[in-house]
Amino acid sequence: MTKEKISIVKIGGNIIEDENALKQFLQLFSKLAGKKILIHGGGKRATQFASKLGIASKMIDGRRITDKETLEVITMVYAGLVNKKIVAQLQALQTNAIGLTGADINTIQSEKRPVKEIDFGFVGEVKHVNHHGIDTLMTAGFTPVFCALTHDGNGQLLNTNADTIASQVAIGMSKIYTTTLYYCFELKGVLNDFEDKESVIQKIDSKTYKELLHTGTISAGMLPKLENCFDALQMGVAEVRIGNTSLFSEENNLFTSIAL
Amino acid sequence: MTKEKISIVKIGGNIIEDENALKQFLQLFSKLAGKKILIHGGGKRATQFASKLGIASKMIDGRRITDKETLEVITMVYAGLVNKKIVAQLQALQTNAIGLTGADINTIQSEKRPVKEIDFGFVGEVKHVNHHGIDTLMTAGFTPVFCALTHDGNGQLLNTNADTIASQVAIGMSKIYTTTLYYCFELKGVLNDFEDKESVIQKIDSKTYKELLHTGTISAGMLPKLENCFDALQMGVAEVRIGNTSLFSEENNLFTSIAL
Repeated sequence: MTKEKISIVKIGGNIIEDENALKQFLQLFSKLAGKKILIHGGGKRATQFASKLGIASKMIDGRRITDKETLEVITMVYAGLVNKKIVAQLQALQTNAIGLTGADINTIQSEKRPVKEIDFGFVGEVKHVNHHGIDTLMTAGFTPVFCALTHDGNGQLLNTNADTIASQVAIGMSKIYTTTLYYCFELKGVLNDFEDKESVIQKIDSKTYKELLHTGTISAGMLPKLENCFDALQMGVAEVRIGNTSLFSEENNLFTSIAL
Repeated sequence: MTKEKISIVKIGGNIIEDENALKQFLQLFSKLAGKKILIHGGGKRATQFASKLGIASKMIDGRRITDKETLEVITMVYAGLVNKKIVAQLQALQTNAIGLTGADINTIQSEKRPVKEIDFGFVGEVKHVNHHGIDTLMTAGFTPVFCALTHDGNGQLLNTNADTIASQVAIGMSKIYTTTLYYCFELKGVLNDFEDKESVIQKIDSKTYKELLHTGTISAGMLPKLENCFDALQMGVAEVRIGNTSLFSEENNLFTSIAL
């Protein structure tokens, strides 16, 4: 039996910060046919609000720490401001959106990142995606919109990487659906030459990925994203695409497609 | 055919501000049998954050105005911080909560309060409660937790009185369920003598309400709440109870019961 298709779409923080870019993206997203899930980060707004509130960014060895006050700001900005603005805008576009954290109907459970050299604070690593719970919403005709927060099941919210949430939700949904995972960001795809924004690598598979790693073509910032892509593919996701907000426009055919 | 029972519970801001009071309340709420919906205000935290962010409270003739910046803070505090903390705590108590604004699956549509003498800004008056949408969540076994935000259907979130949301949601659900609406706040009920916190009026009906109005027994702050109660009763809600957070404790028998 052929499984029904689903699209899992992650948008980066820079799209969220630009009101017009977000509006354009949401119009395209609302037109995307079939079942779909949106996952968003929070961008720099959380940092901006934290600084306005006099909460200093805590860093250890260049790594950001999520203390109690920072988690409160993240919860306000991600789950409140950004998530509900997106939901209200999608409703105006006739997409029956529902905004969620991983705590809502226990959709995404995580555990606090174990302390080794560094205690990252209230940061979660995804442990379990409740794909049945998410599917209950989808079957009812709702479009889930996730922000980058999960919970530990004991009452604690945890700041969680949005790229990882996207790949883990995609893996969860791939148990029921033929799943395509889309990572939308400011570039047209993974670039061969970072100075040339048009030099998109149109296809990456396990073999070419190894070659790209070997030649050092892939930038450091792109590596964790690609790791998430291959994790997803190995765990059942059919395809991953990386590109800009036009990734859904039918005219767009310049993006990076990743498959095993 | 007897309709199934449902409980609509509204908690006031002062319970939310007190971490222990909230915890105790949520424990009682999670034990409350049957289908249930929680509605919460935001308390003084929004005002506190606004002031920390340097956003001055705007008042005209002693009435609070919700401008763009204030609405952003309210969205962050109500829909983010307060709502998601409650959801995470209820999950830990085995109540499968889902946090909502009126924008989520278009549950509560409102319109911006018409400008007469005063433009109140982004303040909504409830126009339509999507009781079918809410019931879809409840039938799936989820417990909706609403904050005091609605939307206009055109992409705009609107700050909306939590007492009114509670009575309007109760009216909506009464089309399907035998509905009891609970208003929980810091007092044991409507008082005969505001100086005596034990002087609870245990029963108010339309007739005694008129008498109480006539004798001036009811305080000014209680009047809009009681108006909401009688609105709800006239529109199909079976009973309204007003009391403190022990309203659900089986040992508690001191509260105000309101019926037509």
